[in-house]
Amino acid sequence: MGEKSLIERVRRRARDGAAVVTGIGDDCAVLRVPAGHQLLVTTDFTLENVHFRREWHPPEVVGWRCLTRGLSDIAAMGGEPRAAFLSMALERVIPQKWVNRFLAGLLEAAEEFRVPLAGGDTAQSAGGIQADIVLVGSVPKGTAVLRSGARPGDGIYVTGELGGSAAAIARLREGRVRAADYERHFHPVARVEVGRWLRRRGLASAMIDVSDGLSTDLEHICEESGVGAEIEVAAIPRARVGRPARQVGFDLALHGGEDYELLFASARKIPAKLAGVRVTRIGRIARGPGMVLIEAGGRRRRLLARGWEHFKGDS
Amino acid sequence: MGEKSLIERVRRRARDGAAVVTGIGDDCAVLRVPAGHQLLVTTDFTLENVHFRREWHPPEVVGWRCLTRGLSDIAAMGGEPRAAFLSMALERVIPQKWVNRFLAGLLEAAEEFRVPLAGGDTAQSAGGIQADIVLVGSVPKGTAVLRSGARPGDGIYVTGELGGSAAAIARLREGRVRAADYERHFHPVARVEVGRWLRRRGLASAMIDVSDGLSTDLEHICEESGVGAEIEVAAIPRARVGRPARQVGFDLALHGGEDYELLFASARKIPAKLAGVRVTRIGRIARGPGMVLIEAGGRRRRLLARGWEHFKGDS
Repeated sequence: MGEKSLIERVRRRARDGAAVVTGIGDDCAVLRVPAGHQLLVTTDFTLENVHFRREWHPPEVVGWRCLTRGLSDIAAMGGEPRAAFLSMALERVIPQKWVNRFLAGLLEAAEEFRVPLAGGDTAQSAGGIQADIVLVGSVPKGTAVLRSGARPGDGIYVTGELGGSAAAIARLREGRVRAADYERHFHPVARVEVGRWLRRRGLASAMIDVSDGLSTDLEHICEESGVGAEIEVAAIPRARVGRPARQVGFDLALHGGEDYELLFASARKIPAKLAGVRVTRIGRIARGPGMVLIEAGGRRRRLLARGWEHFKGDS
Repeated sequence: MGEKSLIERVRRRARDGAAVVTGIGDDCAVLRVPAGHQLLVTTDFTLENVHFRREWHPPEVVGWRCLTRGLSDIAAMGGEPRAAFLSMALERVIPQKWVNRFLAGLLEAAEEFRVPLAGGDTAQSAGGIQADIVLVGSVPKGTAVLRSGARPGDGIYVTGELGGSAAAIARLREGRVRAADYERHFHPVARVEVGRWLRRRGLASAMIDVSDGLSTDLEHICEESGVGAEIEVAAIPRARVGRPARQVGFDLALHGGEDYELLFASARKIPAKLAGVRVTRIGRIARGPGMVLIEAGGRRRRLLARGWEHFKGDS
């Protein structure tokens, strides 16, 4: 499909928000930043056969998840999303209808979170579909919640449930699934509201979003904070998926990626529900080094990060 | 090659600049924006076999040009570049050495323009090399030079010479070339200093960078400003390339892309040299509609935009 028509369609459908002075149609977008704020910037690829498969994921789902990846990073800093930029390379054979539906899904998420699509780039790809989403957000100066502030004794908390997205991938390999039975995979909602709540009250000492899996993302916090962690296996909130709904296994909850929940540390007691989202205490920050898993009977064993690999190496 | 090692290498080599509060290693980068400034954001793909070919372009050149594409967009707004973000997807077979040399070229440009590489994303691609560069810049509120401000009677100016990059592509199709003989293709320098100079003095009523070719980029100014343009063929500064050096043809200067010069309109007389760069008056903004080419003998003919197509459709 033509590059020009994609630009035109994005431009027509883009909503200029309060942050956007000049949107699509110039060399750069011009954005307002609230006085006294610092900027947050994150970029995330959405690549065919790495992050999605056309035979598994409807285009609206790919678009929704594409924006969600960026929104979730803003959420993990406690930030306010301000504007999004989409770069998209498409093989010539990709049907226009696919692109329209992808944009519809992306813009649905953009509207829900009131983030204007303010620019981007389009190109013809040598094969398949490659999207790169940029999210720009902001926080009042000095209030961004980093990965590096966790201290021994802090509680470790996670929003929602884990493993649901990885369970969907496992099921998709075996055949068709009903998207409604795997909501967190097909329609993840970035925890922007929870992140903002925690930042405003200064309650999170460190925070990250669970995109690579609990074990890997917790390790990031430990490394950046120079601490260790103890996790109680039984406390991990495991997603209920499928039909009839069944709780996912511990392995998926511990290592499965793309749940887009928030994982954070706090020295204070956190309510069991924030902004309508369940919050669970799953362990505590330790002096370290390393991560420890405490099993139901009290036995302790080393927890190693097992990174989420998308579909890499799949045929 | 592993994603992790690329992140580590970028992280090691990245220089935190004055704008970067928190760089690579968190969910988002945190950036300072000078008080009273507005933000500029631009994203540009660099795709294998679309924007470069591994057999034509040394990796350092691909990296240098990748950053230059973004810097040039900041220049075209009269902006100050603040930080860059690189997203890069690589096929598993891409040699580590290629990536190292690409990064060396990109970081050389980053250092020359004092722009810290503050983050990005890495992934494994299903084929080839895809990079997406994001440049964040800023300007004092309300001073960004848009495409939309040109008025009838303004002079039309261009920096440097045109057509040199397209001439290099034409030559590359025929065989090997010496990079030194096609400097503007292999080592284009973004006109950040010229753009900044014009913005500070409020001299440019509209500006764009010549990335798609003079005819196409002038049309963008005309469309966004609601004006027409008259260009004197003989006035167009044509690049001298090759060995022995020869002036490129009018067609390449009029329609060839990727010269990364600045094209701007001004109601004032502009010096013939700005920040060491030649500036040439090539015509005037007219009431329009449409663009007119005035030939040496005074004959007028319609000028149609002929978009730059990279290597699309090449075998």
